[in-house]
Amino acid sequence: MAKEKKLVEAITSMEEDFAQWYTDVVKKAELVDYASVKGCMVIKPAGYAIWENIQKELDRRFKETGVENVYMPLFIPESLLQREKDHVEGFAPEVAWVTHGGLEPLQERLCVRPTSETLFCDFYARDIQSHRDLPKLYNQWCSVVRWEKTTRPFLRSREFLWQEGHTAHATAEEAEERTIQMLNLYADFCEEVLAMPVIRGRKTDKEKFAGAEATYTIEALMHDGKALQSGTSHNFGDGFAKAFGIQYANKENKLEYVHQTSWGMTTRLIGAIIMVHGDDSGLVLPPRIAPTQVMIIPIQQKKAGVLDKAYEMKDMLKGFRVKVDDTDKSPGWKFSEAEMRGIPVRVEIGPKDIEAGHAVIVRRDTREKQIVALDELTQKVEETLDAMQKDMLERARAHRDAHTYEAHDFAEFKDIVENKPGFVKAMWCGDEACENMIKEETGATSRCMPFKQEHLSDTCVCCGKTAKTMVYWGKAY
Amino acid sequence: MAKEKKLVEAITSMEEDFAQWYTDVVKKAELVDYASVKGCMVIKPAGYAIWENIQKELDRRFKETGVENVYMPLFIPESLLQREKDHVEGFAPEVAWVTHGGLEPLQERLCVRPTSETLFCDFYARDIQSHRDLPKLYNQWCSVVRWEKTTRPFLRSREFLWQEGHTAHATAEEAEERTIQMLNLYADFCEEVLAMPVIRGRKTDKEKFAGAEATYTIEALMHDGKALQSGTSHNFGDGFAKAFGIQYANKENKLEYVHQTSWGMTTRLIGAIIMVHGDDSGLVLPPRIAPTQVMIIPIQQKKAGVLDKAYEMKDMLKGFRVKVDDTDKSPGWKFSEAEMRGIPVRVEIGPKDIEAGHAVIVRRDTREKQIVALDELTQKVEETLDAMQKDMLERARAHRDAHTYEAHDFAEFKDIVENKPGFVKAMWCGDEACENMIKEETGATSRCMPFKQEHLSDTCVCCGKTAKTMVYWGKAY
Repeated sequence: MAKEKKLVEAITSMEEDFAQWYTDVVKKAELVDYASVKGCMVIKPAGYAIWENIQKELDRRFKETGVENVYMPLFIPESLLQREKDHVEGFAPEVAWVTHGGLEPLQERLCVRPTSETLFCDFYARDIQSHRDLPKLYNQWCSVVRWEKTTRPFLRSREFLWQEGHTAHATAEEAEERTIQMLNLYADFCEEVLAMPVIRGRKTDKEKFAGAEATYTIEALMHDGKALQSGTSHNFGDGFAKAFGIQYANKENKLEYVHQTSWGMTTRLIGAIIMVHGDDSGLVLPPRIAPTQVMIIPIQQKKAGVLDKAYEMKDMLKGFRVKVDDTDKSPGWKFSEAEMRGIPVRVEIGPKDIEAGHAVIVRRDTREKQIVALDELTQKVEETLDAMQKDMLERARAHRDAHTYEAHDFAEFKDIVENKPGFVKAMWCGDEACENMIKEETGATSRCMPFKQEHLSDTCVCCGKTAKTMVYWGKAY
Repeated sequence: MAKEKKLVEAITSMEEDFAQWYTDVVKKAELVDYASVKGCMVIKPAGYAIWENIQKELDRRFKETGVENVYMPLFIPESLLQREKDHVEGFAPEVAWVTHGGLEPLQERLCVRPTSETLFCDFYARDIQSHRDLPKLYNQWCSVVRWEKTTRPFLRSREFLWQEGHTAHATAEEAEERTIQMLNLYADFCEEVLAMPVIRGRKTDKEKFAGAEATYTIEALMHDGKALQSGTSHNFGDGFAKAFGIQYANKENKLEYVHQTSWGMTTRLIGAIIMVHGDDSGLVLPPRIAPTQVMIIPIQQKKAGVLDKAYEMKDMLKGFRVKVDDTDKSPGWKFSEAEMRGIPVRVEIGPKDIEAGHAVIVRRDTREKQIVALDELTQKVEETLDAMQKDMLERARAHRDAHTYEAHDFAEFKDIVENKPGFVKAMWCGDEACENMIKEETGATSRCMPFKQEHLSDTCVCCGKTAKTMVYWGKAY
């Protein structure tokens, strides 16, 4: 019992200190360990298995749209990184530089890729000749490095895992269409699989990607009312194509520049899952992404027949991802551990249950208990997982809606940001000066100009001049 | 027709210049492109899809033995790399060094992982406390960097993709058992999936991994008679555990050192597939690993009904990985292209075939043509793929056996190495001096001491002293 208490006590409550709660969950749910290089992380099996499920599902969705996977080198020569002016300005200050190979200094230093636009462009310039070569719909799964000053597991680390899609198209229209298509794919994935509602919109020029003509984003609201940028999709127009000389012969055999896009999602999503769904007992995993969906926990497992029944139930439930916790820990300890790890459903089975021909199933999010006949087990588990997936999305949506405010003037804006953590919807004139002032005075940044626009007033919340757009603002991770 | 000729003409014949043939296939089958960093490669969709299939199948086999995936950082601090003496001596001369993060010089330089033993050990030292924490059966899929002087796509490159398994066990016996288990898993995979027969054996001390107590290997013979080390599995004993202080409390609560293993396979396997199975028309892919198993090629596709029939056949063959080549190239060009890419079966369908209710299927390896009734198509394709997979293994085995020789004295040994490319079996006294002399005088290295020993004579092929072991020797990639 002392040990069980320790497991539970070790988590700070969310209300008391959300940042500490996050760190505790990440550690106690055994998602990551810190590495000997500051700001890098070891992703442990429980964390990596979530990433594998994210990969599998996203990769399937990508391929359905015609995307093919490739692999580009880890290193970018300095001269290549410098080819596109805005891009190098955005990334050069935060890259890691390789200066020696073996015992020799390199003639030109190489950066460890912070993102691979320049590598894809260099490749496309050689690989694309004709309109028959288009579109190119390539993606890669890899790690990237950005030398961040302050780091937190999953949310901001010096190395992280991601996918980066890079496409090349014959026309500006096709590129724009692909940019939006991938943003919508991301948004659907977040809602359908991660049970995480997102706002779809466009970044302001100040917040867009270095080198992009337009950046689109999905923004999610965490439990503490802070925003998390959860995926971005960029339209580069022909800017990179001109910088790298990527041209194709059109049907009339005239040379034209291609139009490009890129889009990415990262291990940051694991941080989002934690902060959208977690509670004071630990992680709560949406059933569709949970590496283990059902944990069977035998009670009095040394009694004859209990473990056998547990394994038999595992076989019955073979359509799900199921484990039996047959370790020699106490049931109470196992309950806490399964909760900490966010396993959606636990099934308890002991001698009395076996006698009665039933089992107890407990939902992780609501802790609702049901006694179910063994011959209905499969059906009830399926219903419970489905209901939980659905309810988690609705609960997250309700939380987000309850923490989304409207500000009509700057005083109201400041008051909301200071006292009511969440999204603030407010009108904006389109001037970067207002964006800068809002950030300076409140700490909130423009999250996006949502596709679903609302007309809250005629004037900019900051300067009072004519408003152009409604913007979602918020403090962000 | 000029274009078709060009595609075929561009490949050097294997007999004429095997190295050039290899380079041509790699390029013409669109597996890789060269990158702007010397010695690194861009893996294109056709190459990466082979790697994805290798990953999927190996990963499934790993997980069946209880292995879990994790992710370790890309960087190793210099002090960590230096912790195990043999290991650092083996790797330090060929690592890439990061010396700057952003605009600042680093306090300690970091190497880009050439392999991750030191990272896993550093982690295990924190993560393992009790016998209950054992075994640890971890694996990661990632890229590694080794600053090689001479490079060739897939075979030797400065960056390559691989998996590296790292396990920790309570006893020496368990570690040895796991080392052999993974070697056998690798060998079975090569034979069953890649249709590539391998010799299973142990490396001599001279050839073993830096820091290992024993290295086991699988060695395959390429078409040109050179050997390729295709996978290795290392038993570290408790050497790393002592260097990194990885101890666990046993059941009597006494501290003991763990015993460790590591094992890896790489994108080199793609090079092996090319060099074992390829021919003068390009790549020949074993059906089980081929990203596209069947290419349907419509003849006179502009005639009414032809393309529809082709798509209908694709649906009929949905149990396989099938594509329809509906581009506007000529059928002859499509045939050459499908051959170059090694697609196991092509199906030809034209107006006359439709009228007759049949199709033509052509096997890539033998070019055997069959006319098959449409209602038997699925069955015939399945039979053809199965037969091809089996025959490819047998053909490769026959080739290897026909190029495996026995040498009973040094003159015979030299003669074989000089005149008959292949494996040489010969007895060895166990002295490294003989190994060195053989390498100096013939260019052949010891490939392995095979598990299946044969007694060829009583004396070492080099020095004439008492022989201990039979060794496979050969020139190697």
